[in-house]
Amino acid sequence: MAKHAGSVFSVDVAGLESEPGQPAYARICERIRAAIVSGALAPNARLPSGRTLAQDLGVARNTVDWALDQLVADGYIVRRRGAGSFVAAQLPERDAPPLTPARAAAPAVDASPRRLSRRAQALRAYPGHYSGASAIAFTPSLPPIDPFPRAVWNRLVQREAAKPGGEYWEYGASNGLPALRSAIAAHASAMRAVRCSPEQVLVVTSTQQAVELAAKVLADPGETAWCETPGYQPVQHCLRAAGVDVVAVPVDESGLNVHAGQALAADARLAYVTPAHQYPLGVEMSIERRKALLAWARERDGYVLEDDYDGDYRYQGRPIASLQGMDDHGRVIYIGSFNKILFPGLRIAYAIVPEALIAAFVDAKHAADGHTALLMQGALAAFIHEGHLGRHLRKTRAIYDERRIAFLDEAAALADLLEFGPAIAGMHVTALFQRELAGRLDDRAVADACARAGVVVHPLSKYGACERAGLVFGFAGATRADARAGLAIVRRAILASIAPDAAD
Amino acid sequence: MAKHAGSVFSVDVAGLESEPGQPAYARICERIRAAIVSGALAPNARLPSGRTLAQDLGVARNTVDWALDQLVADGYIVRRRGAGSFVAAQLPERDAPPLTPARAAAPAVDASPRRLSRRAQALRAYPGHYSGASAIAFTPSLPPIDPFPRAVWNRLVQREAAKPGGEYWEYGASNGLPALRSAIAAHASAMRAVRCSPEQVLVVTSTQQAVELAAKVLADPGETAWCETPGYQPVQHCLRAAGVDVVAVPVDESGLNVHAGQALAADARLAYVTPAHQYPLGVEMSIERRKALLAWARERDGYVLEDDYDGDYRYQGRPIASLQGMDDHGRVIYIGSFNKILFPGLRIAYAIVPEALIAAFVDAKHAADGHTALLMQGALAAFIHEGHLGRHLRKTRAIYDERRIAFLDEAAALADLLEFGPAIAGMHVTALFQRELAGRLDDRAVADACARAGVVVHPLSKYGACERAGLVFGFAGATRADARAGLAIVRRAILASIAPDAAD
Repeated sequence: MAKHAGSVFSVDVAGLESEPGQPAYARICERIRAAIVSGALAPNARLPSGRTLAQDLGVARNTVDWALDQLVADGYIVRRRGAGSFVAAQLPERDAPPLTPARAAAPAVDASPRRLSRRAQALRAYPGHYSGASAIAFTPSLPPIDPFPRAVWNRLVQREAAKPGGEYWEYGASNGLPALRSAIAAHASAMRAVRCSPEQVLVVTSTQQAVELAAKVLADPGETAWCETPGYQPVQHCLRAAGVDVVAVPVDESGLNVHAGQALAADARLAYVTPAHQYPLGVEMSIERRKALLAWARERDGYVLEDDYDGDYRYQGRPIASLQGMDDHGRVIYIGSFNKILFPGLRIAYAIVPEALIAAFVDAKHAADGHTALLMQGALAAFIHEGHLGRHLRKTRAIYDERRIAFLDEAAALADLLEFGPAIAGMHVTALFQRELAGRLDDRAVADACARAGVVVHPLSKYGACERAGLVFGFAGATRADARAGLAIVRRAILASIAPDAAD
Repeated sequence: MAKHAGSVFSVDVAGLESEPGQPAYARICERIRAAIVSGALAPNARLPSGRTLAQDLGVARNTVDWALDQLVADGYIVRRRGAGSFVAAQLPERDAPPLTPARAAAPAVDASPRRLSRRAQALRAYPGHYSGASAIAFTPSLPPIDPFPRAVWNRLVQREAAKPGGEYWEYGASNGLPALRSAIAAHASAMRAVRCSPEQVLVVTSTQQAVELAAKVLADPGETAWCETPGYQPVQHCLRAAGVDVVAVPVDESGLNVHAGQALAADARLAYVTPAHQYPLGVEMSIERRKALLAWARERDGYVLEDDYDGDYRYQGRPIASLQGMDDHGRVIYIGSFNKILFPGLRIAYAIVPEALIAAFVDAKHAADGHTALLMQGALAAFIHEGHLGRHLRKTRAIYDERRIAFLDEAAALADLLEFGPAIAGMHVTALFQRELAGRLDDRAVADACARAGVVVHPLSKYGACERAGLVFGFAGATRADARAGLAIVRRAILASIAPDAAD
């Protein structure tokens, strides 16, 4: 293979196909990553086109495309529609090992590398799952399970299971149990100002499944979806797994920047947003932005995926109604989940879809897994109809509010290090490193140091490019004593990360 | 728009964009379908290329592609790799209304037609779900729920739910509960000669989900999968929803025709097969075909999806071991389901994956829905470990065998009309119309007439192109009395369909 001049990637190109055991795309990927990390390629620098790179490197265009896809997935490169690929402004810090990688251990035998699909490679590039299952304190997406009325729930499960007939035992309707759909429609209408009939409710297993069904129904492979950046990564994985390209759209203090989305990809099919309480920054989408987003969807035949993951929790100020309730043109798919407000092991969530799309969503759910498991749907319908959901929400709202206040009290001691964002809703709060420290801190290293000391906190950079690095704290699971102890550990971890020589 | 000569489709081309309310692709689709149904395009006739059609019709190439995709999905057209598109040898009878369409009723308002993705259009083209929920007798995929030990199951659910700790309440591992994975590995090893460790087991919700995860991990949009034809349609929908192209590979008395598959698409990424008991024809894949299939996968970097949906039921002859157990190169993904052998409302199935692919499958499951619901996994693990699964299989094997014999006894009275296929395994038997009658019978019309008389039987043409039309009978749910009464109705329906004038 010839060596080409004029490219920062051309070093050692001759070795690209001679190293055994690692595919060519992975080596190209590593080469470009190294150029970025070393500074040979500066932030915001424009990359040569895929075709040029392929010529320069003397490899197939596909190989280069795979490498670029992985670098986009890893956050080193961003694509701008019609403009090309650029080095990201803020680089991810993938070199930090994940805290508790959820991946299976490397198998002992038969572990020869396999050719995975490009989308599977993008999924594999996900930098580990920061699981809080066995750790204390600040896991953002883990509701505390103590307040959940297990005895009530188990009694309902037992009662429903004992019912004669085949309702919970034979095949069920793909859209869900009628009793549960009507309970969900009533809850979402009353609590979140969603406008819907029970016919519009589709019972699914998870927010991810709702997003994936929407992607399949509304977008074809290669079409695009706007995603909030920073934003909830699992949804981006769903979209990529469905073959949809993710366009990272920045978030500011008014939520998703709709103009930026239009500039990046006006022809996107989908826009995924968390308007009531942006994840992870915690901001609320302004009324102007909501209107602009709905106008974009209406004019460009796009759809909005509204993930209202913690809209039931708001502690001060006026309640924020759903975006779906503002939509007069059937352009919003509203998504809610019981996995977060009841307990994660349940696996029941829902989508509320425009009437014109019901049949297509039901067909897609039928193809995906037939229907959601039935007995738990029955128990959940009873739980809602008999008032237990309302009681549980009132109870947990009071508990979380108390914990939120305690957390903010204790967090005041870290004000020299962290700038805390909005904390009037939901179950988490995000803090940026103070501006003068941000350049000297790596949030993944800090999170890693915290984990070693027994405290789970998520690095903000895990959620994609952001103006400054920072940390995401779940406060709903921490008592005041937990918060105090945990925040003291976080403080030490930050200080040690700024000046590692002094730490040991 | 100009009118082009020399094409059977060119009639009324000028009207293609003038009819409001229906997209151009749908009109083209209807035009071609009409030409096929009317005989203007004969069976097996080769169609002009997409490019030529687009030029002839004066529309965009995309529009023609969409129309052709839908006609392929509908069964009017088959694609042969490298050779082009052809009118199907045996046409589907879509004009017959589905027996019990599971789709939501057409919404009353906001029902303006929406642009769906191409894959969603393919799903919508599925000719209805023949649901047996409220009907008697011969629904093929519905196990009888009476033999299931509900009291035992409910006691286990109750016991597991009462356990302290968060195991069933917090987030779970994406690959499944360890206790369930080890129970599944032990069961599949002992009963189906699968060679695996618990680490290779991935707990999913359904066979469809297992297939979809495999498609995402191993194939990219536009890559292909072999599917048995006739074959299990829901799996084909999963594959299409994942953006994978389905190649229809014929089945004969030795199972999937591997040579035909290689001729059609040697570079397929996946081959979906039911080797122990082909669905719906009931044949067993021969040892030569098994070897050829594994050799193809090894040589062409393909993977075999082995759906062992009813391998636990075999009534005579030697037991058929799994294909997975013959594979020395990590080329088989073995799929089993408890939804059929326990009860469909459960929604727990599993994939057993080669070690080198475990991590990628777990990532894909994580992206799809996090993990499968936990409490029922715990109850199922206990059910297996405590011997209830083995007892249930022994009990149902005896019941189904008795029903099988009774069904075949009663079916002898229909030997002048139907030629019954193999019936030594599983829960269903397929019968072709006797050769001299086949041309005069429409299996969907017969199934429809049966349904109106209260008997569910599936038309063979629902499963794709087949040499002759016929009917698929589930025998496991029918007592001898049911079988006699049901088969008498089927007999009348067939006779009435042959000579409708004499029927009323």
